[in-house]
Amino acid sequence: MKIVIDAMGGDNAPREIIKGAIGALQQRGGFSIVFTGDEGIITKELSLYSYDKSRVEVKHACEVITNNEAPATAVRAKRDSSLVVGLKTLKEDEEAGAFISAGSTGAVLAGGIMYLGRIPGVKRPALCPAIPNVRGGMTLLCDAGANADCKPEYLAQFAVMATAYGKAAYGMDNPKVGLLNNGTEDHKGDIMHQEAFALLKETKGINFVGNVEGRDIMFGDSDIVVADGFSGNVALKSAEGCGKTVGAILKQEFSKAKMRYLIARKQIEKVKTILDYNRSGGAIFLGLKKTVVKAHGSSKAETITATVLQAVDAVEGGTAERIAQMLPDPVEE
Amino acid sequence: MKIVIDAMGGDNAPREIIKGAIGALQQRGGFSIVFTGDEGIITKELSLYSYDKSRVEVKHACEVITNNEAPATAVRAKRDSSLVVGLKTLKEDEEAGAFISAGSTGAVLAGGIMYLGRIPGVKRPALCPAIPNVRGGMTLLCDAGANADCKPEYLAQFAVMATAYGKAAYGMDNPKVGLLNNGTEDHKGDIMHQEAFALLKETKGINFVGNVEGRDIMFGDSDIVVADGFSGNVALKSAEGCGKTVGAILKQEFSKAKMRYLIARKQIEKVKTILDYNRSGGAIFLGLKKTVVKAHGSSKAETITATVLQAVDAVEGGTAERIAQMLPDPVEE
Repeated sequence: MKIVIDAMGGDNAPREIIKGAIGALQQRGGFSIVFTGDEGIITKELSLYSYDKSRVEVKHACEVITNNEAPATAVRAKRDSSLVVGLKTLKEDEEAGAFISAGSTGAVLAGGIMYLGRIPGVKRPALCPAIPNVRGGMTLLCDAGANADCKPEYLAQFAVMATAYGKAAYGMDNPKVGLLNNGTEDHKGDIMHQEAFALLKETKGINFVGNVEGRDIMFGDSDIVVADGFSGNVALKSAEGCGKTVGAILKQEFSKAKMRYLIARKQIEKVKTILDYNRSGGAIFLGLKKTVVKAHGSSKAETITATVLQAVDAVEGGTAERIAQMLPDPVEE
Repeated sequence: MKIVIDAMGGDNAPREIIKGAIGALQQRGGFSIVFTGDEGIITKELSLYSYDKSRVEVKHACEVITNNEAPATAVRAKRDSSLVVGLKTLKEDEEAGAFISAGSTGAVLAGGIMYLGRIPGVKRPALCPAIPNVRGGMTLLCDAGANADCKPEYLAQFAVMATAYGKAAYGMDNPKVGLLNNGTEDHKGDIMHQEAFALLKETKGINFVGNVEGRDIMFGDSDIVVADGFSGNVALKSAEGCGKTVGAILKQEFSKAKMRYLIARKQIEKVKTILDYNRSGGAIFLGLKKTVVKAHGSSKAETITATVLQAVDAVEGGTAERIAQMLPDPVEE
């Protein structure tokens, strides 16, 4: 199985992307990598490492899509970009299982839908990052920002898709699904969330446990938190802010107590590690015909390694196939 | 000036409420307190403290509204509850400046609108807590949950009301106002937030700086974050979750390293204090004719003391009067 990687997307591309991907190859067997991007640059970077050459391919692409471009226009116009070449490779190469990019989120979303297409019956593909929780596990948040305007039926599908993904990639057994709302009582929320609550209660194949609040994502009482893409994004960015805030406060407080920091260093750094959700991988884009993962733009090698292994898990667990099975036959709709 | 306090509302009422209020009296002059609730119980609790008796009144109320009751029904039916008696006292007593309750949020909101009434021109009163930020200041979040369904014109008013409050109670000079959105770029958001963005740009009397994300609330780059009540609540609960999560992780990590904890204790506890936004006071309910503050249900004496002083600041700064001045004449609308 091949994992296709956009070598040119992200703040630290191509160096950290390539380093991280090679790291994943060294950690696990059973897959190979196809880098897309400037062949000369990629080859030069690859020469820094020793690795099994039979497990690495390079596919030349002379353009790069930046964060400053309008996503839909860029993926249409830049057909020879590392991102579009990567998505096309994923679509056309039967052995390719997943595509990873740390580039423009909007371009990954627009390009994924345009070049790969949705699983029949999927109304709206959704972003689903995994956020480390206090219990030592992961909470899947879906949708974390692909769909700002949502309808109740989209949220019901997000629950189904995230359940399929949780089972496929994280070995979750009958994962608990909560609805992100402004209170835990059944009647809470605006009209859309009240309707989504009613629909989720009736949705087959999921284990809906009711409304949850922003704080519950990091506590991990439910395995999956379903959200409209707007408030899901607010919650995701807040979780990110938590880690950065704690990091800043710790730095501030211990700057005048360096000896104390050195003594308690192991524990303090562990706190920061747990709160840094980006270390655990990227956000999968659920609902497409094959696996697409968006890594954070600031990803370093360690995160890319985790993202590659996460993509391998998602493909081997049959995420897309499980979603297709769980959704009602589109013809019947 | 009198601060009216619901002595019976909250998880730790009446003990911690009364203890905290007395603490505020001892810290600052220039105001007195009216407790509402069961006179026998309140008098007994008061006997535990020594204080200036001329600064404390008790107004008997034989009922209590609980969190399990439907708010609007409860405030209508329980006219002799500590909450309704408190709100009526605030309305009728010319010397009364503010009312504080740690009881049911829904009942405080419903009762506030029903018994005090809105400032003419206010479309929707809004909850506005202050969240400590990394810069050592406070970020005001408005609306944090009073209005799940919002229209763009509500958000423009939230910005005006929070600006008036920031100037009145926190001494903010031309406070920066950000719009909570799913990205910082100008075009971000669902349709409602795109329209709110356009309206905020044209709103007079505020210093609108553009879109902000969930993480920005705790960073404090803007002084005020305007939000629809749904995603504002998600952000508030996420900030609360951050503090609790960090507390849980610290406990977990240092449980096996007690000596290290003792050495770094001062710094670690400071981190927890900064993240515990409830310590700094309650959430003001902006847009009513007089000041109403909702303290967190779990408030202990220390928080109640802070909330009383916060209410005094809000009244002395003329929050309601400033809001009335800043809003366009309702007749002209």
